[in-house]
Amino acid sequence: MKRTHKNNPQVAAPVRGELFVVSAPSGAGKTTILKRVLAHLHGVTYSVSHTTRPPRPGEVDGRDYHFVTHEEFRELIENGAFLEWAQVHTDLYGTSREEVEQAVQRGEDVVLDIDVQGARSIRENYHGGVFIFIVPPSMEELERRLKKRGTETEATIRVRLENARRELEAMVEYDYIVVNDDLDLAVEVVKSIFLAERTKRDRVLPLVQAMLGLTL
Amino acid sequence: MKRTHKNNPQVAAPVRGELFVVSAPSGAGKTTILKRVLAHLHGVTYSVSHTTRPPRPGEVDGRDYHFVTHEEFRELIENGAFLEWAQVHTDLYGTSREEVEQAVQRGEDVVLDIDVQGARSIRENYHGGVFIFIVPPSMEELERRLKKRGTETEATIRVRLENARRELEAMVEYDYIVVNDDLDLAVEVVKSIFLAERTKRDRVLPLVQAMLGLTL
Repeated sequence: MKRTHKNNPQVAAPVRGELFVVSAPSGAGKTTILKRVLAHLHGVTYSVSHTTRPPRPGEVDGRDYHFVTHEEFRELIENGAFLEWAQVHTDLYGTSREEVEQAVQRGEDVVLDIDVQGARSIRENYHGGVFIFIVPPSMEELERRLKKRGTETEATIRVRLENARRELEAMVEYDYIVVNDDLDLAVEVVKSIFLAERTKRDRVLPLVQAMLGLTL
Repeated sequence: MKRTHKNNPQVAAPVRGELFVVSAPSGAGKTTILKRVLAHLHGVTYSVSHTTRPPRPGEVDGRDYHFVTHEEFRELIENGAFLEWAQVHTDLYGTSREEVEQAVQRGEDVVLDIDVQGARSIRENYHGGVFIFIVPPSMEELERRLKKRGTETEATIRVRLENARRELEAMVEYDYIVVNDDLDLAVEVVKSIFLAERTKRDRVLPLVQAMLGLTL
């Protein structure tokens, strides 16, 4: 019999997926790392957020976002539908509990790319979850990276560095801390965290016991 | 400043190393996997065991084993010097607490390749440790692998399969369960467990805080 990766719990997520919450101060390289990790891993998706902002050209409702009105959003908040939500300028963004729950029940891993406040809400509102924090190798390097973008004034960079310093204090709340010194290495390490979490006993045990015909 | 991997907690193990205990039923592929994982990871070593059996040609005391007399071994047992020990035929083999402790204090990860009984002793005698269990994809495949060795009779294979079935029941005691269906994949996953464990918060926090000049 030719075995396919579908049979392997390390590749196709079995049983129930896991929620991965990833945070980092601006300039740490989180978005770049996540993009590359997700390109190399099967069975991991971003959850589709709800938002009150209007769709941009090309955006599809239900794929890019669930586009809702302010009234609908407020009602969802009142019904406890969000694991976390935040206001950005006048727009509201939220992560729906049902959206995450449906994905993990399909056996998918779900990634949330959110700030330390959002992560705190997840911890309060969700049972489980793997929390990853990405840090720059030094404050000097973070400053260099923020300056390299070239789009911001010296004053804005000062503010961002101060914010970063405050956000970095939240790293004690996370399960894993990944230093983004060498990008390739950081990508490998974050990918490793996903693979390792997928082989945790409680996640694979029922499937493995079934595979081996064990009745415990 | 050119950064070296020495600065990176994901490569050079910082602070304190970790003890990795790896078990598997005979035929699961544990030894092959570990050999390949250790060839691709820095900062991981096997601990040097104590044994009462005489050195074979080429074996060096202190490198391959600590060769001791039965009397010395018995005294070490009485002094609680072993995290685990076992008798194989008339020879005694043991893992010294001091040996492991010195390595992890140097910041090295230590691998113990031992059976489920040995792993139980480690759990009783060591604070911490990461426990990995490697399983075959099915009992049929395990039987095929045992037969392929070609050195054993049908009766011996029956006994080994029965032993394997009993050992497999111990998988519930381990932190990670790795299915060795595709060897390359299993190697990647075990390597991932090592990398992921190296980025756990409690392990890297002091180093990362120092790197970033944070005083928390």
